[in-house]
Amino acid sequence: MNVDATRIDLCGLGVAAAAELLARGEISAVALTEAYLGRIKALDRKLNSYIAVTENLARTAAVESDARRKAGRTLGPLDGVPIALKDNIDVAGVATTGGIGARRKHVAESDAFVTAKLKAAGAVILGKLNMHEGAHGATTANEAFGYCYNPYSEGFTPGGSSGGSGAAVAAGLCAGALGSDTLGSIRIPSSFCGISGIKPTQGLVSVRGVLPLAFSLDHVGPMAPRVADLAVMLQALAGVDFDDPLSLAPPNSFSFNLDDTKSLAGLRIGRLTDIAVRAGDALDPDVAAGYDKALNVLKSLGATIVDVTLEGFDHNKVRSRAMLIIEADLAVIHADDLERDPGGFTPGFREGVDYGRQQSAPKLAAAFEMLREVKPVAAKLFANVDAIVTPATPCTAFSFKQPMPKTLTAFTAFANYAGAPSVSVPMGLSKAGLPMGLLFTARPWADITALRMAAAYEAAANWNLRPKGF
Amino acid sequence: MNVDATRIDLCGLGVAAAAELLARGEISAVALTEAYLGRIKALDRKLNSYIAVTENLARTAAVESDARRKAGRTLGPLDGVPIALKDNIDVAGVATTGGIGARRKHVAESDAFVTAKLKAAGAVILGKLNMHEGAHGATTANEAFGYCYNPYSEGFTPGGSSGGSGAAVAAGLCAGALGSDTLGSIRIPSSFCGISGIKPTQGLVSVRGVLPLAFSLDHVGPMAPRVADLAVMLQALAGVDFDDPLSLAPPNSFSFNLDDTKSLAGLRIGRLTDIAVRAGDALDPDVAAGYDKALNVLKSLGATIVDVTLEGFDHNKVRSRAMLIIEADLAVIHADDLERDPGGFTPGFREGVDYGRQQSAPKLAAAFEMLREVKPVAAKLFANVDAIVTPATPCTAFSFKQPMPKTLTAFTAFANYAGAPSVSVPMGLSKAGLPMGLLFTARPWADITALRMAAAYEAAANWNLRPKGF
Repeated sequence: MNVDATRIDLCGLGVAAAAELLARGEISAVALTEAYLGRIKALDRKLNSYIAVTENLARTAAVESDARRKAGRTLGPLDGVPIALKDNIDVAGVATTGGIGARRKHVAESDAFVTAKLKAAGAVILGKLNMHEGAHGATTANEAFGYCYNPYSEGFTPGGSSGGSGAAVAAGLCAGALGSDTLGSIRIPSSFCGISGIKPTQGLVSVRGVLPLAFSLDHVGPMAPRVADLAVMLQALAGVDFDDPLSLAPPNSFSFNLDDTKSLAGLRIGRLTDIAVRAGDALDPDVAAGYDKALNVLKSLGATIVDVTLEGFDHNKVRSRAMLIIEADLAVIHADDLERDPGGFTPGFREGVDYGRQQSAPKLAAAFEMLREVKPVAAKLFANVDAIVTPATPCTAFSFKQPMPKTLTAFTAFANYAGAPSVSVPMGLSKAGLPMGLLFTARPWADITALRMAAAYEAAANWNLRPKGF
Repeated sequence: MNVDATRIDLCGLGVAAAAELLARGEISAVALTEAYLGRIKALDRKLNSYIAVTENLARTAAVESDARRKAGRTLGPLDGVPIALKDNIDVAGVATTGGIGARRKHVAESDAFVTAKLKAAGAVILGKLNMHEGAHGATTANEAFGYCYNPYSEGFTPGGSSGGSGAAVAAGLCAGALGSDTLGSIRIPSSFCGISGIKPTQGLVSVRGVLPLAFSLDHVGPMAPRVADLAVMLQALAGVDFDDPLSLAPPNSFSFNLDDTKSLAGLRIGRLTDIAVRAGDALDPDVAAGYDKALNVLKSLGATIVDVTLEGFDHNKVRSRAMLIIEADLAVIHADDLERDPGGFTPGFREGVDYGRQQSAPKLAAAFEMLREVKPVAAKLFANVDAIVTPATPCTAFSFKQPMPKTLTAFTAFANYAGAPSVSVPMGLSKAGLPMGLLFTARPWADITALRMAAAYEAAANWNLRPKGF
């Protein structure tokens, strides 16, 4: 059956469906790329999700992709699929601002590991996406490059720090995006923008060439409309990198194949019994109700639901230590720019760095020790269950006029401390029409188990979210 | 053939040979234990290698071991083999001094992971061994518990920080010992005392219950007369520990079987071309000559010798950063005792801690970053060779009147930064009659490859060192 390409909603395909139509020759990389470029031009003024659109590079890449396909030399499923990158990921010849004014002219000399992987897979790089300044925050209220907005509600945050990635994917301004995640920066905007995102197992995807926030907690990973998109992207991104000290070879048994997403029989999923306590005042009743419904969906899929408590993991206490680790690392990472152009950072950012500078080495050593203590908590958890499921965020997106709740990372950060894979998938809309997210955090190297759970839930819940006007 | 047990040199057997005679019923655990206890009483006044001899516990364990064997319920090869532990390793009911005066009364409530492993394997715990104060030094010139001496030369250091372990094993005061190693503390005393020692791959052997020196660099491992002893002990010690944040499951392919130790054909071993530069003034010409001869032995065993340089790894620079990491961690680890009983630490130790306290958090963050940069150097090295071989130490043991050379850890510390397994094996005696050590450092999880290389060299070189009078 031949499909009329002019009748396909090209920018609604996401990654896996676009890859399939490209493979079947029903659409071209050039048509797809032009559709996204046109849409960015028409719609991104409302969102400000892009810091830079690499239009010429994208067009050239699309033409080359179609030529490869014609010649039978296609590079893989991502060949010709338009992807955009958070602006802390190096693309050779393009500035890596990291959302920091002082870095406007920091043109990258070479590609990040993940950029090179995407190029090697034939992906079309559309541009660089807006983000919270230096990845140090979760609203993407960016003073230097302009606020990024949530496509579901004017004047609302898309979350962050990968806010541009969340907004652009949700609004159909790229087929998929890369984000980075230190305490939740992929999964918070995924939750707030009604899309899917995965923070992979630490070491599975190299962070070389991604501007760091905290060396020991940083991860990079894909964000896309659907879970199947994440699996395709993750396979292209993964790989051992000698130049990333934390890069690791996955176990021989590691697979990128989602297999059965109709049944979760045989899998044990932990239900966190004290989400209300952990979320505190920030817990939206719609999120709590959505979580309960999601647990029923998982039960109906055959999963065994087990009550778990994460005893010994006090999010608020660990978070304050993680902040010290981040702010000490920031002082190292941005030392040159802070000296050269202090005005190129916001006062809030500089205050964070100053806090880090004023602390002692033993205080930082103790912070690392406290973070390490999360690993045994995770090991005991994952001896009992295959994954834990929680809301991705305690609340939905909020107005830029509101402060960020302190418990925003209450459910996401655990995976960063544990090095565990963690997937956010849409959990429907709140009564106010704002997306909610469900989070599966699995044992290290069980990335595909987390994705499989998310995919099964996605198929069963069948939300198919799309923001009005996009 | 029946062997006359009275004619066996019981305390010269080491671990594997004792295990074999025990298994054949030719010796008893009680006879073996009494022989060691008698020898400790007779000879340790010269060495001061023990801080505590757990005579009653040992006798009870020996009787129980023999009873198990008689009943056909032997626990494994180590059942009945007398082992001593560095005094930073918890044994329930016994003080863990860590070589620190202030800790004289710090009785451990439970066993360290490795202690429990040894007990579960039926080993007889003989006692706790002398060490450098807090493991923070490499001479075992211990002011609180008395200096420990090298059995090869009166008034000379056995090395450290596991100096008691080195001296006791060399003098036949235990069949094997445990040491700990942060920059070389197992392998330096192994080299100085003419015995074998392995710092395993980081994560293979849990460090829970071992008083830390630097959380991120500490390792625990066996020291014994011969390489085969290390393999038997390592198998008993290894295991995943949920309560150690750095504990890891080895790859499925991991084995403790030494296999062929007659030929090294097919293995690529890196020869470090600039040992003279790295060792500096400390390089003993006998060590340099011994290293060249050892390379010839390895070549004759069929190994392919490849020149390597470790480009990008500046030992002196990294060492100063590691010292900051150690001294910041020490301030955390000993915070209570330093406040309660500052006089229970030497002024030198307190100065180190004070240095750590005076440094800033970003300085420590930068130190961690510099250490992480060693991993890519190691990854590139091990992509080219199976292991690197170097002298274990640039020099032999020295008089307590002499200062410790700054490059003492020039060859050992790399393995701690890289998380790689590293085995020291005797390389003969210097002209002055002092032991020299050869070091094999293999890629992470290739512990058995490192041991196999060391065993093949040991068999071919056939040094059979034994200090006079012991």
